[in-house]
Amino acid sequence: MKTFVAIMAGGIGSRFWPASRTSMPKQFLDIAGTGKSLLRMTFERFLNLVPASQIYIVTNHEYEDLVAEQIPEITKDQILGEPSRNNTAPCITYAALKLSDLDPNANMVVAPSDHIIFQELEFIRTIDLALNYASHHHALITLGIEPSRPDTGYGYIRYDRNPVHADNAANRGVHGVLQFTEKPPLESAIQYLKSGDYLWNAGIFIWSLRSLIDAMAEHAPEMLQLLQVENVYNTPKEKEFLSEFYPMTPRISIDYAIMEKAPNVYTIPSSFGWSDLGTWASLHDFLPKDQHSNSITNANVHLLHTSNTIVRGPKGKLMVIKGLEDYIVVDEGDVLLIYPKSEEQEIKSVTNTIESNWGEQYL
Amino acid sequence: MKTFVAIMAGGIGSRFWPASRTSMPKQFLDIAGTGKSLLRMTFERFLNLVPASQIYIVTNHEYEDLVAEQIPEITKDQILGEPSRNNTAPCITYAALKLSDLDPNANMVVAPSDHIIFQELEFIRTIDLALNYASHHHALITLGIEPSRPDTGYGYIRYDRNPVHADNAANRGVHGVLQFTEKPPLESAIQYLKSGDYLWNAGIFIWSLRSLIDAMAEHAPEMLQLLQVENVYNTPKEKEFLSEFYPMTPRISIDYAIMEKAPNVYTIPSSFGWSDLGTWASLHDFLPKDQHSNSITNANVHLLHTSNTIVRGPKGKLMVIKGLEDYIVVDEGDVLLIYPKSEEQEIKSVTNTIESNWGEQYL
Repeated sequence: MKTFVAIMAGGIGSRFWPASRTSMPKQFLDIAGTGKSLLRMTFERFLNLVPASQIYIVTNHEYEDLVAEQIPEITKDQILGEPSRNNTAPCITYAALKLSDLDPNANMVVAPSDHIIFQELEFIRTIDLALNYASHHHALITLGIEPSRPDTGYGYIRYDRNPVHADNAANRGVHGVLQFTEKPPLESAIQYLKSGDYLWNAGIFIWSLRSLIDAMAEHAPEMLQLLQVENVYNTPKEKEFLSEFYPMTPRISIDYAIMEKAPNVYTIPSSFGWSDLGTWASLHDFLPKDQHSNSITNANVHLLHTSNTIVRGPKGKLMVIKGLEDYIVVDEGDVLLIYPKSEEQEIKSVTNTIESNWGEQYL
Repeated sequence: MKTFVAIMAGGIGSRFWPASRTSMPKQFLDIAGTGKSLLRMTFERFLNLVPASQIYIVTNHEYEDLVAEQIPEITKDQILGEPSRNNTAPCITYAALKLSDLDPNANMVVAPSDHIIFQELEFIRTIDLALNYASHHHALITLGIEPSRPDTGYGYIRYDRNPVHADNAANRGVHGVLQFTEKPPLESAIQYLKSGDYLWNAGIFIWSLRSLIDAMAEHAPEMLQLLQVENVYNTPKEKEFLSEFYPMTPRISIDYAIMEKAPNVYTIPSSFGWSDLGTWASLHDFLPKDQHSNSITNANVHLLHTSNTIVRGPKGKLMVIKGLEDYIVVDEGDVLLIYPKSEEQEIKSVTNTIESNWGEQYL
């Protein structure tokens, strides 16, 4: 069975402002200081699984050119432009229907473009296990990350600690999902971690196209009907059809539309050095640091009495900083942010103030 | 009697790094956020006293073009380029000899180019008083600023509180100088302020060219002999002569060379809203501030829980800052400085470290 990979690259990454901008969101940036964008790293990671011709990238239509520029190995037909921002359920439905027209028997891997994975071999091994299971079972699989701390920023998956097939070595990693939970308060997160019954929901899905479309027919029939059409996908009519019907789809997540409702949802407890890089603090955790736990990206930086601080500036810029502890200092040329790291969740509301004071120029 | 003004504009303003650079020192910058450089403001201030044709600017030869650009009203002959940085005594001697060749009976006002004066009318009135006295007496006059705080960054003048001519209304402001003192420790500065016998030495001098050259002949004869020459100043030979002999002059201040030694030194206690803008903190005192005592220059700035901080950035740049108290945040495009204001005296040594790490590019 053939495998298609659909990378979702339509987000705006507002929590990484001012590095991430509406016109150039997080996934297109070299956030990790590796010399490659997060999207590029995601694409290269999947080249270990399938050839470039089987990797599709779903993005907002605004970013189609950016994707083409960063991933020259794929054709224009492999870049799926969403006419509007309607969350993950419509985005995945569109990709699944288009790919199903190419090969209805194929499997599909869905993955975000802006996460980081350190252990690629283990990642590919886990995806392979999931694909093998999805090929032989009517299964919707979401990878679950074994939690290392009581993080309140993630959704959690409560799972059955007994494998579905304890007797089958190949499938021993696959477990039934008992419940999805929203981002929990700290107390619950501590309980979750202690119990050992919970995994982080990483937003990485594996299924056969057939299983997914069946689940949609069952749990999201209206959305499916809206986008399901014959002899349109992969033809010159696709763009026009989409711009008319895609914006009418409900703005809901695939978790809410399908995963929380379907009975055949499975997970594979995973551990491959994953981070969703959802916050500056989580990026800081992964970056190399000096002996005072400061991380420095790109700029020439001279620090005095400064600790646990993330410093990011343009290449060639000198940044001299004294006396900051647990700060974010991000200089993006037209915007400088100096903010306590522990209060970064406020940045979103700060950008609202900035928009009302100075318009969209800095967003 | 004619009056020449000599503005000294050869300093490198290293305490205002990173705004002030070797290639573009403080006096050429719009440090005060007025839209004009400090030199330009100084020049325009003196236009209230004399026409542009009587204003001369002494600077390092490196900055001659910068001066010509900022002060298009004067001729090249009015820009005196020093071949080397030899402190104020050689600089003033050169200017005095050149001007004396134009008119040996003239008076001379010497003033730094990088100070700020808020009450221009009072300033001009004080200079007029000094010029009137210098026209009729063999007097070397240095303006003394009435101190408002025990500042340890200035030299002080101890003066005779009885005027020299108590009976003459026109000259009643002129007092004898008893002693010059170096920058004092805080305890002494507090005593000075309490006693009422001390003034700040502002480095603004008024004398007749004849009185100054006489004083030089008496107290600094070697320097005078080195630079005194006939039929050279104001001729095509001036530049060549100067590049040979100027670098041989001793690197001493006019205070040390003349003022501390001459018996005919006078002062006029003055109060015209003066600051030498010697430090970021002193600039902060003079800038307009928000209700949390923050001053903002040029940039678009959004501050949260930030107080007593000086923020300066490029026009159009957005600077978002939370949680700083008593800081300097200066963004100059290629250099960003975030430094506790109370520790700004360290900046000079920081620039040494920077030079040894990255060379001269940021200085």
